[in-house]
Amino acid sequence: MRIEILCTGDEILTGKTVNTNYSHIAQRLSEAGLEVYWGTTVGDDRVSLLTSFRQAAARADAVIVNGGLGPTVDDLSQEVAAEAAGVSLVLHEPWLARMEAFYARRNRPMPPNNRKQAMLPDGAEFIDNPIGTACGFAVTIEGTRFYFTPGVPREMRQMLEEQVLPRLLDNVGLQGVTRLKRFHSFGIGESRADEMLAGIKALAPGGGVKLGFQAHYPELETKLAVRGADQDELDRKLAPIETEVRRRLGNFIVAEDGQTLEAVVLGGLRARGGSLALAETFTGGAIASRLLQVEGADEVFRRGLVSRDPTELAAAVGTAAREFSPATALEICLALQQQSGATHTLAVLVTMERGAEAAEAGGAITIGLISPEARIVREARLVGGREWVRLGAVEMGLDNLRRHLLGLPTDERLDFERR
Amino acid sequence: MRIEILCTGDEILTGKTVNTNYSHIAQRLSEAGLEVYWGTTVGDDRVSLLTSFRQAAARADAVIVNGGLGPTVDDLSQEVAAEAAGVSLVLHEPWLARMEAFYARRNRPMPPNNRKQAMLPDGAEFIDNPIGTACGFAVTIEGTRFYFTPGVPREMRQMLEEQVLPRLLDNVGLQGVTRLKRFHSFGIGESRADEMLAGIKALAPGGGVKLGFQAHYPELETKLAVRGADQDELDRKLAPIETEVRRRLGNFIVAEDGQTLEAVVLGGLRARGGSLALAETFTGGAIASRLLQVEGADEVFRRGLVSRDPTELAAAVGTAAREFSPATALEICLALQQQSGATHTLAVLVTMERGAEAAEAGGAITIGLISPEARIVREARLVGGREWVRLGAVEMGLDNLRRHLLGLPTDERLDFERR
Repeated sequence: MRIEILCTGDEILTGKTVNTNYSHIAQRLSEAGLEVYWGTTVGDDRVSLLTSFRQAAARADAVIVNGGLGPTVDDLSQEVAAEAAGVSLVLHEPWLARMEAFYARRNRPMPPNNRKQAMLPDGAEFIDNPIGTACGFAVTIEGTRFYFTPGVPREMRQMLEEQVLPRLLDNVGLQGVTRLKRFHSFGIGESRADEMLAGIKALAPGGGVKLGFQAHYPELETKLAVRGADQDELDRKLAPIETEVRRRLGNFIVAEDGQTLEAVVLGGLRARGGSLALAETFTGGAIASRLLQVEGADEVFRRGLVSRDPTELAAAVGTAAREFSPATALEICLALQQQSGATHTLAVLVTMERGAEAAEAGGAITIGLISPEARIVREARLVGGREWVRLGAVEMGLDNLRRHLLGLPTDERLDFERR
Repeated sequence: MRIEILCTGDEILTGKTVNTNYSHIAQRLSEAGLEVYWGTTVGDDRVSLLTSFRQAAARADAVIVNGGLGPTVDDLSQEVAAEAAGVSLVLHEPWLARMEAFYARRNRPMPPNNRKQAMLPDGAEFIDNPIGTACGFAVTIEGTRFYFTPGVPREMRQMLEEQVLPRLLDNVGLQGVTRLKRFHSFGIGESRADEMLAGIKALAPGGGVKLGFQAHYPELETKLAVRGADQDELDRKLAPIETEVRRRLGNFIVAEDGQTLEAVVLGGLRARGGSLALAETFTGGAIASRLLQVEGADEVFRRGLVSRDPTELAAAVGTAAREFSPATALEICLALQQQSGATHTLAVLVTMERGAEAAEAGGAITIGLISPEARIVREARLVGGREWVRLGAVEMGLDNLRRHLLGLPTDERLDFERR
């Protein structure tokens, strides 16, 4: 089944807003095993909309339209959908009542404009929006089914998962349940991960598992998209593959699904009643920032210290180092531990190297880690320009702590290290 | 002139990569006063490409094609362009020589695949790529001019500015020079800025100035897009408007063009031989991180301290505060100044408030600032959820320092403050 994604709105057309709705919809369709065939973007313009609806109907088997369901005069999707389908607009009473209740709960009168959002093409299939005032709907235009979704990303995403994807899968006779299992790893590149997981799809009883990767440096996301008759079947298909992915990618997996590396680290500390103090250099507060964005981080995170200068950093903890070295890293950790009383202290020291071109510069990283059980130093030379080294050093510092907390080796070689 | 942007490639079509090339091209065209009329996305598929070229030719007056110029078999743009234009591919000798020289400079042999990148449709106009191996070209398909650009963002951007935009402006008979003047402000929302700048376009002698806004919270970007016969005319048109924008938006302008607030702050400190020490709470290292991403920041930035807990933060500088208050903010600044020897110390203390819904929570902010000239406290209550408050507090801390360094008032009310 060929699916077209049709995005509407002047803000998207003129590039004022980056079209992340498109990429989200396309990604979810692809993960569910559906074929994205065409993408179209048009503005809030009646003629463009009508033309694009007709062309999409001619070339695609299903169309997802995004945007144009708001209360203002620019929002033309319902109106043009009705025109293209050759029907009139009619009031959808239940949705009007839902909107009125929505405003009543907030003790505000419903603006009269919002009534427009309950006007749907005659005969349209209602698609619920549990969190906003723009309901969706489906109509058939020249033999092709069109699914209309709102432009607000949060609303679109929930409706896509709960309402649109199941309908599309039904239409193509695919079994109705899908799941996406995600592994986040650090230290292996996409092509090596692909090699490491060779043949893995064959482990699913009955097939129906799709393997994909998405690199967001420094992490790599490995995705298993599964389809099955019901949740039990998904469990049966996924279980052997999940186990095998964990076995093969092993210690490089830093988190799964909605988890993050920083939350895993904080969880590990919390589980043993631990606390953390941190010294950063070139990463400039980015390690602290990642940790402290996790809710509840303040129960575990004692303090962070940032300075680019070795002497200054040492002075701040009352020692007298002059340069970044393994000895300095441990010295800073120790002083920081005494000063803060934290059970765990981490120091991530970076010295940038100068290459012929910025992208070839690279950085030398020294990580010090002191816990009640160990004193560890890890050295590495990461490839890449300033931003690349910064991101890599943040991740490597956090990952060393994770590995130590989980009893894993902290000296496994990463693909991003210079030989 | 109606322009279509046609993006090609499976990674874009399936949403694996977010299409920022589209939004960049569309934005630059709009800023230059050109009309973006349609956007199309297709995969690396011969039939889709050919169909999309023909449809674009039928509806647009000019088409910018992005992607598909690489050396691999997936990259089909030249081939399909030739087919659509009804010509054959011919070797562009000068480009082949340029590529060979490019590899020779790097002491590597040119992979044989790259030869494909010098094969252009017969009669095509060559478009130079000064920084990569994918040259661009222009051909006419069914009466419409098509401009082919590479998918690598850095290469596409430079070629768009230097090669494609001037050709498009020429084609529509628009005068050949454009410029984009940008102001970055903090503290005023888009609709208020729009009111504050009412009528401003009329100040340009002869017109031809376009005013636009782009909100990236917490900053607002105000853009003046100007077109004129030559650079002198641009100067004449812009000068009175620039002056007036600076007058009306006044102290809220934190930076202009490619400058950033953090670079302005560091520049102000450097100019007076100053140095900075910093204490952060809820912002979790994000203030330090913004400053330290500026090259040369380490000459000025002495140290940063991060903790979510008032007692812990105070203990780290050797004082004994229990809660965040104006007195605590100054106390921490003073202790930090004595400890670090920095001329300027800044403390940004945040207490999150709990609302009925996350987005309504808000945060109370206390900023302390000590310099050789002054001791300042600024308090505010920012609206919004956790992430909103975090971003606002980072910006507000930096902006208070900027205002103090430039001798501006630090107590002007922001639109994001609760009344």
